[in-house]
Amino acid sequence: MRIALDAHGGDIGVSRNVSAVLELQKQSNPKVQIVLVGNKQEIEAELRRRRVRLKRIEIVHAEEKIGMTESAVQAVRRKTNNSISVAMDLLKVGSVDGMVSAGHSGAVVASALLTLGRVPGVSRPAIGTRLPITPKMAFALDIGAVIDPKPEVLLQYGYLGTAYAKSVLGIDNPTVALLSNGEESSKGNALVRSARELFEAAPNINFVGYVEGQDVLHSPPDVTVTDGFTGNVALKTAEGTAIGIQRVLRDELTSARWTKVLALMLRPAFMRLRQRIDIEGIGGAPLLGVNGVVILSHGRSSASALVNAIYTATHAAEVGLPALQRDAIPALVPVASDSAVDASASQHPIE
Amino acid sequence: MRIALDAHGGDIGVSRNVSAVLELQKQSNPKVQIVLVGNKQEIEAELRRRRVRLKRIEIVHAEEKIGMTESAVQAVRRKTNNSISVAMDLLKVGSVDGMVSAGHSGAVVASALLTLGRVPGVSRPAIGTRLPITPKMAFALDIGAVIDPKPEVLLQYGYLGTAYAKSVLGIDNPTVALLSNGEESSKGNALVRSARELFEAAPNINFVGYVEGQDVLHSPPDVTVTDGFTGNVALKTAEGTAIGIQRVLRDELTSARWTKVLALMLRPAFMRLRQRIDIEGIGGAPLLGVNGVVILSHGRSSASALVNAIYTATHAAEVGLPALQRDAIPALVPVASDSAVDASASQHPIE
Repeated sequence: MRIALDAHGGDIGVSRNVSAVLELQKQSNPKVQIVLVGNKQEIEAELRRRRVRLKRIEIVHAEEKIGMTESAVQAVRRKTNNSISVAMDLLKVGSVDGMVSAGHSGAVVASALLTLGRVPGVSRPAIGTRLPITPKMAFALDIGAVIDPKPEVLLQYGYLGTAYAKSVLGIDNPTVALLSNGEESSKGNALVRSARELFEAAPNINFVGYVEGQDVLHSPPDVTVTDGFTGNVALKTAEGTAIGIQRVLRDELTSARWTKVLALMLRPAFMRLRQRIDIEGIGGAPLLGVNGVVILSHGRSSASALVNAIYTATHAAEVGLPALQRDAIPALVPVASDSAVDASASQHPIE
Repeated sequence: MRIALDAHGGDIGVSRNVSAVLELQKQSNPKVQIVLVGNKQEIEAELRRRRVRLKRIEIVHAEEKIGMTESAVQAVRRKTNNSISVAMDLLKVGSVDGMVSAGHSGAVVASALLTLGRVPGVSRPAIGTRLPITPKMAFALDIGAVIDPKPEVLLQYGYLGTAYAKSVLGIDNPTVALLSNGEESSKGNALVRSARELFEAAPNINFVGYVEGQDVLHSPPDVTVTDGFTGNVALKTAEGTAIGIQRVLRDELTSARWTKVLALMLRPAFMRLRQRIDIEGIGGAPLLGVNGVVILSHGRSSASALVNAIYTATHAAEVGLPALQRDAIPALVPVASDSAVDASASQHPIE
């Protein structure tokens, strides 16, 4: 599979993405072929600086790049030759099978909508993610693409999440739940209660009701559906909690010299803990509902996190995720009528 | 201060609440006098069973109790002689200075609204909580009293939270932020964006903008304001994350015999970790916006957690929280016009 990697994506940009490509080269996986998209001079200067050569890697030049603080839609429209949009064009014409970017997520969403378009029956896209810590492989969407979705959009997310869980995560007949403030059907805000009615009447979906914030990480459904605002707040709160606990743990373990020594001996265990709760290790966040394999990676992604995202893109392309998404949405499902979608999505990028 | 304790509150009921009273007796704090409210026969049977006597404790009989799965408003209206409402009546007539219940939080909210009424200028109450893990003392509201509040209600929460942080937590000129999906003012859902405009125009409030889920635990404002749905989901997600991490940590540390031994030696450090991230230790959750000192405690509260909640009630009564709340709401602040408040609050209890 040929995967386009946005060379300017992420807080560190070219040098981090080149590191990811080098790490991938070491693993010499014959399945993956990278097309590095970005400023050719900058990329080549980075390679000279490191005295390395990229094997089996193409570079496709993109004159411009989008900064993390730019307005997504404006930037994508004005800088037509930016690295994200050039990668998206390659995907559109079939020159690559998927794309990965750690760049401005709002710009990735806007560019995907403009270039690839939405899957028929989908009114808004969603960003999904696998959840760390959970005892089994669990998936949640949307974590920030669309901030005030209609109930119909949440139902579409249910189908998109089901398709992803089945095909990419390999889960049979995945269970789907709505994130709410309690398990009883009397709970939920107006959005979630309306969505629940749609889910209960919908065909071909294994809907199991509400899931609480506590259980999303403890005994999660296979697919947790939520709006982008709540999803974003919940995910970031979980990340903040994990960071906070690690800080408190470090404080406590280094409070005395002898505990410091013991803690040092337990270092491998703590490293494994860190890996298991690290959201970076989980392979990037798929943008669902668009006609193509698009994987977003965190702006602070390490080279290994980018490699994981590239593998996710490869796997999603292999199983034919875009076609599976098209098949997943039943013809019956109502489509929210507003089409101000793209603007809203891109006014509210997740980072 | 005289504090009423709901003897039937919590998953375990009378026996747990009696344990809390006994623990309090041991500390023989002359400031606190407990009025145990509940079924007198049950309470006395429990005391006989344990062969203990309660010193400086009154028992006030309440014939009925409210189960955790009952509909809040209906139960409060039908069972007029339930332990929560009897405690609330004592508070109303000034026979006690505050009340604590680990019972059905929706019933506590409904009973407080019916019996004590709302603080003038407040259209909906809020449940607040101190946040664990955070480096400093931070407070958040609402965590589940009102599920779909109007923007005006969030502004009222800003004032109530400020009054609580100042008087009970002792924070000078507390900073107030709205929980959102990003820090930039372009972020936020429709509710949060409208509320932001109100906060920016409001007098006598130290509003500092948006706070993200990650920072609520990392570099929090003194008061985080959110709607009860988002607050409930975020808090439960944080709890789930903390539980999940502790489970993974235990797994990793007990994976080999020698790590098990080391981990055992570090037990005191892990116990301190647990205390620092434990939401139970933080003294219960005040119900704000009602004319009286009402502290909710978690249904799974330990005796120590209940004792902490009793101390919080004592302190809040000492500083005169109800009057401070009345003074905190400026006359200018718009009041949401709907008064379906109470029904909504109690249809959506936090547990």
